[in-house]
Amino acid sequence: MQINFTSLLNKKSINFLILLIGLQCFSQNKPNVIIIYTDDQGAVDLGSYGASDIYSPNIDKLAKEGTRFTQAYVAAPVCAPSRAALLTGKYPQNAGVNSNTSHVPDSHGMPNDQYTLAELFKDNGYKTGHIGKWHLGMSQETSPNAQGFDYSFGHLRGCIDNYSHYFFWAGPNIHDLYENGKEVFYDGQYFPDLASDRALKYVEDNKDDSFFMYYAINMPHYPYQPTDKWREFYKDVEKPRGDYAAFISTIDERIGFLIDKLEALGIRDNTIIVYQSDNGYSTETRAFNGGGNSGPYRGAKSSLFEGGIRLPTIISWKNSLPENIVNNKFLVNIDWLPTIASLCGINSPKNIDGLDMSKMIKDPNTSSPRTSAYWKYGNQWVVRKDNWKLIGYPKDTSHKGELDLENDALFLSNLDEDISEMKNLASKYPKIVEELKAEFLLWEHGHEADIPKKMVTINHLGKHKMIKSTKKLNNRYKNIEILTDGKRGYVDYSSGQWIGQEGKDLEFVIDLNSNKSISEINLGYLHNPSNWVFCPKLFEASFSTDGLSYSQPISSKASTRVNDKNNFIDTINLQTKQKAQFIKINIKGIKKIPEGHPGVGNPGWIFIDEIIIN
Amino acid sequence: MQINFTSLLNKKSINFLILLIGLQCFSQNKPNVIIIYTDDQGAVDLGSYGASDIYSPNIDKLAKEGTRFTQAYVAAPVCAPSRAALLTGKYPQNAGVNSNTSHVPDSHGMPNDQYTLAELFKDNGYKTGHIGKWHLGMSQETSPNAQGFDYSFGHLRGCIDNYSHYFFWAGPNIHDLYENGKEVFYDGQYFPDLASDRALKYVEDNKDDSFFMYYAINMPHYPYQPTDKWREFYKDVEKPRGDYAAFISTIDERIGFLIDKLEALGIRDNTIIVYQSDNGYSTETRAFNGGGNSGPYRGAKSSLFEGGIRLPTIISWKNSLPENIVNNKFLVNIDWLPTIASLCGINSPKNIDGLDMSKMIKDPNTSSPRTSAYWKYGNQWVVRKDNWKLIGYPKDTSHKGELDLENDALFLSNLDEDISEMKNLASKYPKIVEELKAEFLLWEHGHEADIPKKMVTINHLGKHKMIKSTKKLNNRYKNIEILTDGKRGYVDYSSGQWIGQEGKDLEFVIDLNSNKSISEINLGYLHNPSNWVFCPKLFEASFSTDGLSYSQPISSKASTRVNDKNNFIDTINLQTKQKAQFIKINIKGIKKIPEGHPGVGNPGWIFIDEIIIN
Repeated sequence: MQINFTSLLNKKSINFLILLIGLQCFSQNKPNVIIIYTDDQGAVDLGSYGASDIYSPNIDKLAKEGTRFTQAYVAAPVCAPSRAALLTGKYPQNAGVNSNTSHVPDSHGMPNDQYTLAELFKDNGYKTGHIGKWHLGMSQETSPNAQGFDYSFGHLRGCIDNYSHYFFWAGPNIHDLYENGKEVFYDGQYFPDLASDRALKYVEDNKDDSFFMYYAINMPHYPYQPTDKWREFYKDVEKPRGDYAAFISTIDERIGFLIDKLEALGIRDNTIIVYQSDNGYSTETRAFNGGGNSGPYRGAKSSLFEGGIRLPTIISWKNSLPENIVNNKFLVNIDWLPTIASLCGINSPKNIDGLDMSKMIKDPNTSSPRTSAYWKYGNQWVVRKDNWKLIGYPKDTSHKGELDLENDALFLSNLDEDISEMKNLASKYPKIVEELKAEFLLWEHGHEADIPKKMVTINHLGKHKMIKSTKKLNNRYKNIEILTDGKRGYVDYSSGQWIGQEGKDLEFVIDLNSNKSISEINLGYLHNPSNWVFCPKLFEASFSTDGLSYSQPISSKASTRVNDKNNFIDTINLQTKQKAQFIKINIKGIKKIPEGHPGVGNPGWIFIDEIIIN
Repeated sequence: MQINFTSLLNKKSINFLILLIGLQCFSQNKPNVIIIYTDDQGAVDLGSYGASDIYSPNIDKLAKEGTRFTQAYVAAPVCAPSRAALLTGKYPQNAGVNSNTSHVPDSHGMPNDQYTLAELFKDNGYKTGHIGKWHLGMSQETSPNAQGFDYSFGHLRGCIDNYSHYFFWAGPNIHDLYENGKEVFYDGQYFPDLASDRALKYVEDNKDDSFFMYYAINMPHYPYQPTDKWREFYKDVEKPRGDYAAFISTIDERIGFLIDKLEALGIRDNTIIVYQSDNGYSTETRAFNGGGNSGPYRGAKSSLFEGGIRLPTIISWKNSLPENIVNNKFLVNIDWLPTIASLCGINSPKNIDGLDMSKMIKDPNTSSPRTSAYWKYGNQWVVRKDNWKLIGYPKDTSHKGELDLENDALFLSNLDEDISEMKNLASKYPKIVEELKAEFLLWEHGHEADIPKKMVTINHLGKHKMIKSTKKLNNRYKNIEILTDGKRGYVDYSSGQWIGQEGKDLEFVIDLNSNKSISEINLGYLHNPSNWVFCPKLFEASFSTDGLSYSQPISSKASTRVNDKNNFIDTINLQTKQKAQFIKINIKGIKKIPEGHPGVGNPGWIFIDEIIIN
């Protein structure tokens, strides 16, 4: 018997059915979004990225069910600025997070006025959840709940013990586990399971709404703490690689749980999943100096070589985006915000740095809208344009090769020919170096002061003359002979060519051996607000012929530049007309860092490199 | 009906009964011994010691059931040397453990040839068990099982997370839990419970034998990790005190479990229990700078003021030793070995420093056989004689008062009048200072070099002349102007008056401004093997009139003193006859620390304080 189904329905009921389908379609027009952000995972540390010793079937399957990128970057080589960039679609500098944020209770992290992915989705009717690591602020106003997340569960600092949930990276050793801003205790329970359980519950609780879940998995960040199962699985792999690999499998297993749950709830097809690591693998002592792998790339965590920033990255949206794609086009994690917004049919905010990659993801044959990008972390900076990459002050945390402090201060690579950045082409292609330098200087955070210069040597009356400090020096900066060595400081305050002091004055006496005619004194100083270093507030000099009685001091103020947010090296000038053998120099720094700078409220540092006497 | 029991027994069975009773008596002649050694517990941090905010009913009851000491010391203010002294009955220096032992895998701790309490009891037919913290060596030959313990369960390093059992104090972050030398995993289980369960099982398993159990409880050492129960109990006590107090109650609860078990097994009366803390409370950052309390005493962990070494101490042997006694006599933890041995009827080894206190404990009216004692830790040292206490280079980690680097370098107190050691009587009683100094020098580890001297100033040709380093300096020691400041180094290598280098040469050029006649050069140096600092192996000088061409170097070797185990400050002399403006100085240290020193196999440090040119 054949049944004519249509004949069973009257016209009205057909109309109702069409309405229902329409509603269903409307609901599917607002897909869920899950961003899985792992912690310190190396550039090739997944089966699908070529790691034959790592078992990651669920993530590899995710890659098969979507696009796996080979040239996807993060905007910073360490946790906090990388996360700030992801969540704001901006370069870390524009997101207000240049470097890792503080672990001190109540300290601020990413400024509250930053507009995050969570806020964007919330404003578009989504439920928003954060599970896992935060590391973008300890204060209430910079907490996950204050940055757009309806729900938050996890740790606020950079790393925890997975069983006690204590932060141990620096003292004091403190408990760090919160649910919606309230400290919660799950003593002894494995954090990856606590987080996974909550992720599963979150998608289940919100299955009938559209949701955005930021699942910030705190692995494979140290401490490497695999469970019995994976310890046994990797027992023949040497440590620390074995424990690190076990952690990747621990991630993978939990991503499997999550995808199974999405499938069981019938929302897998309506959920966009993005997977990325926040920065390269760690080579810190706490991480046994390694465990991860950057494969062909040079560099690791904290480095702007490829190994620190070019990382495993996947997007999967079953039945809506192409599957089984390996995409080698250029993108940066700041692009996720406009890209995901576009895929969800949401308008992006205007003042962002990210670009919409949705076309290039939908059709891998189209080119990436991104042809250039910038990075800046500490002294290191990068300008990437097409296949050329120029690094200022490169740092190779993977120790794959030597770097010369002066000759490699500008490091040029052609990534098409040398993916490993082992050969510095700067001297071979000076014109390209100049072009990329110019490009960098066009970027709002690229400054003349960031460009390496030849070490400047100066002849002056005080050169190699005896200098003494009349005040207690900072223990780390006592080599005051560099103040009269005729050389300007190079690279940064920690290069050994700077004398620093925190919240206190510096005072020196220089003995010129005999009376000399003095017409001016220049004080070389550093201004680097993100590292709490500020230009001196006051620079004074007084003069003596006998070293006992001194003239009234002459002085110069530089305080107008204190609020400058840029880094620079400059001098303060004092004009005079004196005959003297002894010069007493007094330098005052700011006592309290003003609002608008990372270290607000703390004492400021002063750093000086030369007292130039003419 | 009355039964005449005697009539039920024939003579033979009565004889058998007497034999049984006799055996039982014989067994009771070999009492069990439990030493409970807590970790970083402050001087007054028990209810019975006056802490009104700490709940410790079980330990307080233990004190009631025995003797509570008010003047019992440990021989060192930090963990490892304190434990070495306890286990050997010797001053830490004689036990081969001057300072905390290394956390590096396979590194040696207390030398294997030390004869421990465990070995003594084992040799006298006891079962011997260690439960808890070890911190006396990571190598197999310095492990608990190699030092006389049949059974061992616990962590080998100085501190662990109580849930993951990871060592986190320094990198790498590594799992640290062992049973009889085999790594065991109890992920997520609370270590105080794991240890307590094993302690209870140990006494149960060995109830029919005599046993010695060293129960080294790893609390209240940071990380402060109380359970819900005690967190709730102390919720109104401010942190860190609340968490610290919770940890003391956690200890107390488990001591309650143990004593209940002894009672249930019927062996409480046949078990000597000694309770002591290993050193004063910690003021380290990891411990939130405090939490514990040294009450009226000055100092805390790492200090030789009373607060670092005069600690809660109890002995209880029900029905065999007097009860409810507060004993204010002088004893040191090195006395436990001969004292307990004596109580158990065991002969002590001869070459120990401890004294038998059993008479003074049995009859609190007799005086203590101890009238003096010595301490030495880092630069600090103490000679205590009767009520006088002289400290060399005192350090007040409790920050209860100021100390003047030079004027308080010798600090004299009369403990009868000033238990708080707040007033330095050294200038008031110079004769007593001299007597105690002489007493200290009679001690085998008291050396002339340990005695503070006035800072020596010297006039010489190089004084205040320009000095430059031709080699990369160690980041922490760059203030090379102190090498020509006319002052000899004072106190220790970290005082800012020393230039150090590890495993590499030092080389300097001194510019005398014009040609001078030079007859000798003296190099001031430090030799401090316990801190890996060794006298230079070679001292060379070459001369130049133009700063370009130098003479053949003249040299002097000091290598014969490398093996000296004592600390000293000395000079190496070079004789010459030169006219020169420029002197190049080269100093070579030992590349590998030889056998017989703590840092064996590592590069050695050189420390120099002045280059004296005449």
